[in-house]
Amino acid sequence: MKAKATSLRVKLPAFVFVTQVIIVALYAAFVTYDEDADARFQTNRTNPMDNAVYRDYPLFTDIQVMIFLGFGCLLAFFRLYGFGGMVFNFLTATFSIQWAILVQGYFQFSHEGKIHLGVINLMNAEFACAVVLISCGAVLGRTSPVQLLVMALLEVPVFACTEWAVLKYLRINDAGGSILVHLFACYFGLGVSFVLYRPCLNDGHAKTNTSYQSDLLSVMGTLFLWVFWPSFNSALTLKGDDQHRAVLHTFLGLIGSTLAAFALSAMLNRNGKITMADVQNVTLAGGVTVGASVDMMISPAAAYALGVMGCAACMLGYKYLTPFLARRFRIQDQCGIHNLHGLTGLISCTAGICAILMATEETYGPSLYETFSHRAPMEGDPRLQELQKLIPGLKPGLGRSAGEQALYQVAAVFSTIGVSALGGVLTGFVLKLPQLAPPPDDLCFDDELFFEVPPDYDSPLQLTKNTTEDSAA
Amino acid sequence: MKAKATSLRVKLPAFVFVTQVIIVALYAAFVTYDEDADARFQTNRTNPMDNAVYRDYPLFTDIQVMIFLGFGCLLAFFRLYGFGGMVFNFLTATFSIQWAILVQGYFQFSHEGKIHLGVINLMNAEFACAVVLISCGAVLGRTSPVQLLVMALLEVPVFACTEWAVLKYLRINDAGGSILVHLFACYFGLGVSFVLYRPCLNDGHAKTNTSYQSDLLSVMGTLFLWVFWPSFNSALTLKGDDQHRAVLHTFLGLIGSTLAAFALSAMLNRNGKITMADVQNVTLAGGVTVGASVDMMISPAAAYALGVMGCAACMLGYKYLTPFLARRFRIQDQCGIHNLHGLTGLISCTAGICAILMATEETYGPSLYETFSHRAPMEGDPRLQELQKLIPGLKPGLGRSAGEQALYQVAAVFSTIGVSALGGVLTGFVLKLPQLAPPPDDLCFDDELFFEVPPDYDSPLQLTKNTTEDSAA
Amino acid sequence: MKAKATSLRVKLPAFVFVTQVIIVALYAAFVTYDEDADARFQTNRTNPMDNAVYRDYPLFTDIQVMIFLGFGCLLAFFRLYGFGGMVFNFLTATFSIQWAILVQGYFQFSHEGKIHLGVINLMNAEFACAVVLISCGAVLGRTSPVQLLVMALLEVPVFACTEWAVLKYLRINDAGGSILVHLFACYFGLGVSFVLYRPCLNDGHAKTNTSYQSDLLSVMGTLFLWVFWPSFNSALTLKGDDQHRAVLHTFLGLIGSTLAAFALSAMLNRNGKITMADVQNVTLAGGVTVGASVDMMISPAAAYALGVMGCAACMLGYKYLTPFLARRFRIQDQCGIHNLHGLTGLISCTAGICAILMATEETYGPSLYETFSHRAPMEGDPRLQELQKLIPGLKPGLGRSAGEQALYQVAAVFSTIGVSALGGVLTGFVLKLPQLAPPPDDLCFDDELFFEVPPDYDSPLQLTKNTTEDSAA
Repeated sequence: MKAKATSLRVKLPAFVFVTQVIIVALYAAFVTYDEDADARFQTNRTNPMDNAVYRDYPLFTDIQVMIFLGFGCLLAFFRLYGFGGMVFNFLTATFSIQWAILVQGYFQFSHEGKIHLGVINLMNAEFACAVVLISCGAVLGRTSPVQLLVMALLEVPVFACTEWAVLKYLRINDAGGSILVHLFACYFGLGVSFVLYRPCLNDGHAKTNTSYQSDLLSVMGTLFLWVFWPSFNSALTLKGDDQHRAVLHTFLGLIGSTLAAFALSAMLNRNGKITMADVQNVTLAGGVTVGASVDMMISPAAAYALGVMGCAACMLGYKYLTPFLARRFRIQDQCGIHNLHGLTGLISCTAGICAILMATEETYGPSLYETFSHRAPMEGDPRLQELQKLIPGLKPGLGRSAGEQALYQVAAVFSTIGVSALGGVLTGFVLKLPQLAPPPDDLCFDDELFFEVPPDYDSPLQLTKNTTEDSAA
Repeated sequence: MKAKATSLRVKLPAFVFVTQVIIVALYAAFVTYDEDADARFQTNRTNPMDNAVYRDYPLFTDIQVMIFLGFGCLLAFFRLYGFGGMVFNFLTATFSIQWAILVQGYFQFSHEGKIHLGVINLMNAEFACAVVLISCGAVLGRTSPVQLLVMALLEVPVFACTEWAVLKYLRINDAGGSILVHLFACYFGLGVSFVLYRPCLNDGHAKTNTSYQSDLLSVMGTLFLWVFWPSFNSALTLKGDDQHRAVLHTFLGLIGSTLAAFALSAMLNRNGKITMADVQNVTLAGGVTVGASVDMMISPAAAYALGVMGCAACMLGYKYLTPFLARRFRIQDQCGIHNLHGLTGLISCTAGICAILMATEETYGPSLYETFSHRAPMEGDPRLQELQKLIPGLKPGLGRSAGEQALYQVAAVFSTIGVSALGGVLTGFVLKLPQLAPPPDDLCFDDELFFEVPPDYDSPLQLTKNTTEDSAA
Repeated sequence: MKAKATSLRVKLPAFVFVTQVIIVALYAAFVTYDEDADARFQTNRTNPMDNAVYRDYPLFTDIQVMIFLGFGCLLAFFRLYGFGGMVFNFLTATFSIQWAILVQGYFQFSHEGKIHLGVINLMNAEFACAVVLISCGAVLGRTSPVQLLVMALLEVPVFACTEWAVLKYLRINDAGGSILVHLFACYFGLGVSFVLYRPCLNDGHAKTNTSYQSDLLSVMGTLFLWVFWPSFNSALTLKGDDQHRAVLHTFLGLIGSTLAAFALSAMLNRNGKITMADVQNVTLAGGVTVGASVDMMISPAAAYALGVMGCAACMLGYKYLTPFLARRFRIQDQCGIHNLHGLTGLISCTAGICAILMATEETYGPSLYETFSHRAPMEGDPRLQELQKLIPGLKPGLGRSAGEQALYQVAAVFSTIGVSALGGVLTGFVLKLPQLAPPPDDLCFDDELFFEVPPDYDSPLQLTKNTTEDSAA
């Protein structure tokens, strides 16, 4: 009966094949190559080495490693849910990307009724995919693969639409995606988790169930994410010095948060020992915290300090807030995404606003109006022409003051949180539909539900039980 | 006695050192630097940043990761043959590369009696190495390391010669190597496997012998291959839009095959569960299937659909064809290379031929004659001059029509399969020579034969046995 | 009591937070952006794509993977010290990098009282970090994390000062860092190890304590290092053909040493089996051995032969020298760094000197004076002007002859070894201060000392004990 309840024999193939047919049809009807990928657009003045693929592809592969190997290994930390962690990450990621190519393409890359495809779209789609994967962290091990795919199906359009509206109408600075990626993903995930609440999980069940090997594998995932996070934060900045600063700040932020994570982990542990979950998660806080101001002239010291602050918030969140939210607000958060993406995201937005308020022409020179493009003078303003002499090709902006830009940032934070939380809750209700065959309440973190497991699958558990009994006796 | 039969104490060192002496002698006599690596060729007009190393090295490292980490982890899926899978892959790969540098150098990169060495040669050598590693997949765990090295020694020249002859005389389009890499490797490997047939392996022995950790490690290998496959398929295309399309098509093909693999795996499993072997192998089918047409204007939807088709063929192959071949034709295939490289390769060739037949100047513009260089007008044809105005530096071609080109593709497929299968069978007979000390028939998939194993080596098996007995009792 | 002696609750946080406050203060006071990262320096003639980040970042990420994943996995080879190996590597690396940015910045990248920060500094800092990590290999598992951090705190300035003095005053050729990275790291580490001698470890305790999974993980680390080693050796060479050669030579050297390592491992083992420790370490010898001459015109055959020679020295070192040093000279060397970095480093320096002595204008053309910049004529020498016609922008050198340069190389080797060994011994005495709470003599290679371990932690040991008892009975 257990087996029947979670059988994937009908619903997973049905869902996948129906969506694949639709995807192929939509791609055939609406997706074509962009200028850099279309043979027809190559003229006798095209230099092949100027193709955008050479600018975008190296960063794209870095992000690929983060998505598939970084997240994949990181999420394999449960002793008996390693297959689920790594493999459902693989499944959800590919589904999200194919879908995001279409939806983001519709909002951002379409003209004349066609979506124009290049590596840059794939990169944007991987950001949307990261959003889905972060959200999934909140309900890790509590959902069937069909539920995960439905969640991706619903989250991607809400995300793409929010992203498009915020970038088009509010016009914010968010190079590292602290608002649009991390805050959105976090509150969407928490919304879903709230609806999928399972009381039986509050007994600390989840805490003890790693194994020696799964902890090591998960640290490898952390290291993949750590190593390539500068690529993630700098992938969508302006080229040149902006991208250079994004790399530096992310790296320094990560260093700050990593060291602080070790220190706090030992300090807050009653035996003075390091907790592997902290090494796996809290070390990464700095990458999120520098996000919103990652391309600005915040100074290396500030990037480092932001990393430390993000780490402290993240650590305290794991220690106190996550259990509190689970008990009081019925918001369970298996991977602690609220700590690693929510709290740090909020710090990042605050820091971004401060950086915007303090940005002056003295510090940035005329390229102030490139980094903060919305502060550039409007079309027709005589100052624009002066600036265009200094920066050829500067586009007219909105003539915003620093204070105005800060208000738009605040508006973006609140509207993103609102939309994502609401979207998450609604998605949660969809996921509870009996048609999606949600796994019974007492089944979770168990690869055997969804995978043919090898013969040694039970033994780690068996062993532990024996050990525990022995030590109890 | 068991130990004696498989001792590597004499034959492995003897073989390696003899070949190393020969390699050093041949390198000293015949290998020099190419223009971009030779200090003498740098003049006052050389811009160091135009050096070919900056074009080739990033793709080269991606392929390195695929060869050593991707294949290495993927092949470590046997519970008690993880060392063998990962470490013999390392050994065979390095041996093949050093040898391919020479042999391919002789055929493709030599002039004035010298082989000219640059990173581009290393990249080509890694393709030859991939061929050997794929072939080895058919006999994984059934061969001693000396046998693997002898196999590499023989396969590399047959491959390099076929590659050279096909590219020089048949002049085909095969950017992703579907014909020359995948089909060649597959049928060579099956040829070897046919001769090394071991009846005792047909009882499904191989099926149950993974462990929880080995399955996870193998999935990591899959993910390394998945992530960097676009680099593999685009490494040897024309620069510019051709390379850009190769990246896009490979990525979309992989997404199509990955999702379909999950769906089919659950559908074809009697318990409605996902089989890890499918996740490890069938997800990659799309990368092969788009190979032959990867740089053409096939449209994103077609790349996606090719991935799905390749996945279906590959999955059905694993389910039905592999056992059938083993029982009826005595062709055992431990890693199922016939499914992942053979069947998908054939689909890819067919798709490539269709794409060639449908290619028009309308779709490609004048760069049709670059992508399909053999369709360019011949030297002296007035149309050539016209085209050269549109594409400066266009080389004269052979004036082939689309139909003619398609026939050459077909000829290449058949001759590659014929040569590789024959080469494989002959190699198999060499590997059976008693001088190579092939391991006894009943010994396989056992690291203890060739490695000093750590003290916990037996325990996983032990455990399983106990568990099985318990559950039986 | 065991727990108390090694508790990190006070000392680790105290040390980390104090240093973090100091680091932030120093960064705030002294670190600013370099030209390529500072917005103010971008003018209307700046092409963003010429930013140094595009030259340096790809190599930087490769080295990041080596440092965090390569070293991390490689050092996780102990059965019960996998967390320690991988996680303390992470901790020590981040600490070293933040500190090296400052110290190297002071010596090499400061002008007008400010350290100018760009990705190139991060890359240099990762070299300093590699030095610390190699040194730590000698005392792996015998030190607390506080001791490791203090060791990094002391080693980085000694290294940075030596590096600066050798490069500025002795002006040597050492593109791959054989002298400054490998020899320095090795003798510093042995110096520390000498002082931290633990007699109880000489019973071969360390030899048997790997596990099947830890061996596999460690091989993965080796493969990460192997794959990206060409990036490490070529990161700081001149751009263009020099960098191209560095890639080729490193790759060929690694191939030579890898094959020889397999052969020697089987030959020297009494059962004719391959030892995993050899696969994990000796295969990498070629990367070090080609280091000092990696950018010179030594010929591909010589690079290959150097790899084989380095491998032989390294292998014999593991077999005979390491136990000898431990017993006779009280120099224990857990990871065998003296074999992989010391012996091979010495061979590399010798090869470098030979290559310097044999370098002629005939082989190099005029770019001889770029690769060997100190052999360029001095300011005012009429030959300089002639050469500057052939190589625009050639800087005046010191007019050294090949023989003179060779003597400076020798001087650099001896002074580096002297300074590092002395520095290591002094550092060792600091590490023994009771204030640093060194772990008691009988505690080592045990994750439980410093980590909250999962419930299955003991089981592998348990299992082995049982198995051993069974087989004994």
